[in-house]
Amino acid sequence: MSKPQDSFVQQITSPSEDYSQWYVDVVLKAELADYGPVKGTMVIRPSGFAIWERIQAGLDRRFRETGHENAMFPLLIPESYLQREAEHVEGFAPEVAWVTHGGGEPLAERLAIRPTSETIICSMYAKWIHSYRDLPVLINQWCNIVRWEKATRPFLRTTEFLWQEGHTAHATEAEAHEEVLRMLEIYREFLERELAIPVITGKKSESEKFAGAIDTYSCEALMGDGRVLQAATSHELGTNFALAFDIKYLDRDGVEKPVWQTSWGSTTRMIGALIMVHGDARGLVLPPRIAPTQVIVVPIAPGKEGEAVRTRVRQLTTTLEGMYRVRVDDRDEYTPGWKFNEWEMRGVPVRLELGPRDLKAGKAVLARRDTGERITVDQEDLPHAVGQLLGQMQDDLLARARDRLRERTRTVATMAEFAEAMAADRGFFVAGWCGRASCEATVKAETGATLRVITLEGEVPPRCLVCGEKAAHRAVFGRAY
Amino acid sequence: MSKPQDSFVQQITSPSEDYSQWYVDVVLKAELADYGPVKGTMVIRPSGFAIWERIQAGLDRRFRETGHENAMFPLLIPESYLQREAEHVEGFAPEVAWVTHGGGEPLAERLAIRPTSETIICSMYAKWIHSYRDLPVLINQWCNIVRWEKATRPFLRTTEFLWQEGHTAHATEAEAHEEVLRMLEIYREFLERELAIPVITGKKSESEKFAGAIDTYSCEALMGDGRVLQAATSHELGTNFALAFDIKYLDRDGVEKPVWQTSWGSTTRMIGALIMVHGDARGLVLPPRIAPTQVIVVPIAPGKEGEAVRTRVRQLTTTLEGMYRVRVDDRDEYTPGWKFNEWEMRGVPVRLELGPRDLKAGKAVLARRDTGERITVDQEDLPHAVGQLLGQMQDDLLARARDRLRERTRTVATMAEFAEAMAADRGFFVAGWCGRASCEATVKAETGATLRVITLEGEVPPRCLVCGEKAAHRAVFGRAY
Repeated sequence: MSKPQDSFVQQITSPSEDYSQWYVDVVLKAELADYGPVKGTMVIRPSGFAIWERIQAGLDRRFRETGHENAMFPLLIPESYLQREAEHVEGFAPEVAWVTHGGGEPLAERLAIRPTSETIICSMYAKWIHSYRDLPVLINQWCNIVRWEKATRPFLRTTEFLWQEGHTAHATEAEAHEEVLRMLEIYREFLERELAIPVITGKKSESEKFAGAIDTYSCEALMGDGRVLQAATSHELGTNFALAFDIKYLDRDGVEKPVWQTSWGSTTRMIGALIMVHGDARGLVLPPRIAPTQVIVVPIAPGKEGEAVRTRVRQLTTTLEGMYRVRVDDRDEYTPGWKFNEWEMRGVPVRLELGPRDLKAGKAVLARRDTGERITVDQEDLPHAVGQLLGQMQDDLLARARDRLRERTRTVATMAEFAEAMAADRGFFVAGWCGRASCEATVKAETGATLRVITLEGEVPPRCLVCGEKAAHRAVFGRAY
Repeated sequence: MSKPQDSFVQQITSPSEDYSQWYVDVVLKAELADYGPVKGTMVIRPSGFAIWERIQAGLDRRFRETGHENAMFPLLIPESYLQREAEHVEGFAPEVAWVTHGGGEPLAERLAIRPTSETIICSMYAKWIHSYRDLPVLINQWCNIVRWEKATRPFLRTTEFLWQEGHTAHATEAEAHEEVLRMLEIYREFLERELAIPVITGKKSESEKFAGAIDTYSCEALMGDGRVLQAATSHELGTNFALAFDIKYLDRDGVEKPVWQTSWGSTTRMIGALIMVHGDARGLVLPPRIAPTQVIVVPIAPGKEGEAVRTRVRQLTTTLEGMYRVRVDDRDEYTPGWKFNEWEMRGVPVRLELGPRDLKAGKAVLARRDTGERITVDQEDLPHAVGQLLGQMQDDLLARARDRLRERTRTVATMAEFAEAMAADRGFFVAGWCGRASCEATVKAETGATLRVITLEGEVPPRCLVCGEKAAHRAVFGRAY
């Protein structure tokens, strides 16, 4: 009975066979999400939402510690507001869902469901900011966003998604720049420490930056299939929106000046990244720090010995619950083997098994989700042993993800080298770039890879991989989700 | 300097003079909310949103303790879904905002921005529920809602608002009924314990119940002007939606049966209730348990003695911060008097003042927001004294609100008595009611008061206040927000 059965695993497509189908299988069978009735929408089910709540808690704490407060701005944005910043409307208008009727009547002006909130927030900042005393304004909001997408996939790209968007206003360009890099670092640290996802950070090219920004900075992560996912972004808006929305402050020197702004965001697609960075053929693998349930306890309690096992499990669980996020699966209608598969598929980091033989010996079995390794420990040592196992698994997941990132990041000097490397395996491709949009476009046309970021560190290779002229930047390319 | 100045108070309209204007003044000047660009929308500013976050945390904890999980369902609902339950669509269609275009093209079917989520959630439950093993389903979501309202007021009635909506499915009617009353009691207990708002609970009449429900239960609170506010509702849906959406389960006996459902909700209007139950001529008064900042520390630090005062304040604050939610206002550009007024208007329960004289004497001054009472305490006693003051204030606010509720709840036997009592003062009016919609309508037409609830307890008066026939119910009337 304690040997896992394979019934569930067979329901998940092998990732090496069909990665896309494997991803969807994990999302649906681990009950993270389901498809909504409107094309491209999703329902985030309790198992998926619990992960999002932990992501929220982890980020929110970091935002507060750096002085940010939460607020709520309206969902509906008048079309005229969206149009005030020229690049911004050009970038977002094609993706907008429009409200044209309300209360049984046609509206005088169409309303956009927010595809992002810069415009409506700036219109409020113009009312609130008057003096240098009012600065900086450091506000974040957690909310839903609608963008009309053609090709969708749960968590990665959906018509509606959840996110947080920070919007700050500062007295000086230097302060705004500092904020942009501070938030980029918060995302990087969070992704690495909590989600065990190492990223490459840097600046976007002109063609890839946020519509209306001066510069966009990004965290780029590597998925299990070698494709790249933009995991979080931080935008330096300069005075673009301040000028469009007339956000000015009276400075100490008596002069009226526009504010310098930033915005930064991360979304429910981080759950997609979690799946694709750590998941395996058996399903989801959750890093212990983010797992809503860290330990699943499965009593193996057949027949007449059952009650004694259950009693002991209750005692042990009470102790563990004070230290870890623990859940007991004592349902009678399922076998232990079925439960093993079920909770493995759902990604719970550690399984605790206790049967009649363990009971007599004063032992328990701990199984690790990532390696499958099973160890037998004394029941008294459980609190310590579980903690060590969770810590070790968190460290190992990050170490393995780092190894893969390193192995799959290759330097290419020419387009020929790029093509050859890409044919061998996907991943990140580091190359010199002259800075011209035409060379960037050539890479995209010939390889399907886009310029993910210009790194802020590392040596710039001597020549542009396309034109061969002197390189201005160290660029990182990849095929993106 | 330590005597409050009156500059700010004068900016708030007196509540006895113009209660509506007083309310709006408090909302805007305490920076709880501001008007959004689209008519009827609001921005919840950080000071208001922090209150909402505490409300969320308090309710969410109670929902989890009773076995509920959070999830996210889509914002957009196909028109055909909204139409499946006849009463439901009739009730909500007039208030719907419609999305007709997306991605630059007209949509084949109009999409409603959720005015409530029963229909879309039921469509998912039909996919997820098959067997008695799948029941009960106990899901809650925190989200935004849009209802096209004509007359709006911040927090109380806005085109968009935030709320939570619980949606549960059960195997039996008895279980569903139990859930409805359980959630009603959770709301009642939360309102009373955390917000210090006593309520009258009971069942709605046919004409006032939720569109699509069998029964609606409600918590009704009394505002400072004698008007009544529906603070939270819990709906027994019977099998209405289960039949419309085909949500069936195979029971233990091998028979397929429709599920029994409930839904229950509470919204950002609870912030409006907080303002109107406890607020006064000086502005907002927040009960300590819900106040985002419980103690505002104002150092009175003039000239050369300033540094010593500030140092001591920092020491004292460090101790207090481990126990209470504390904030220090050490801004140089404002006088202590200005700060006193400012934080009183913002409703912070306790103010701690420390000046040069206090420093020498080893004392500090504590001021209570609700009574204005100031006491001098030894600095070593501060942790204890602050705790006692916060606890006392919480108790007193509830006691005073209860007294007002009792005083303003009057029993009337006839319409003439009702009119006379209403002319003297608004409030709750308890009366016998025969149960006929025509008598209920007469009350509304002649007094402007609606039937708030049929109480579940208390003796039924002998006769209907309108027709004089035998009363079937003990009804509570009031003029509602």
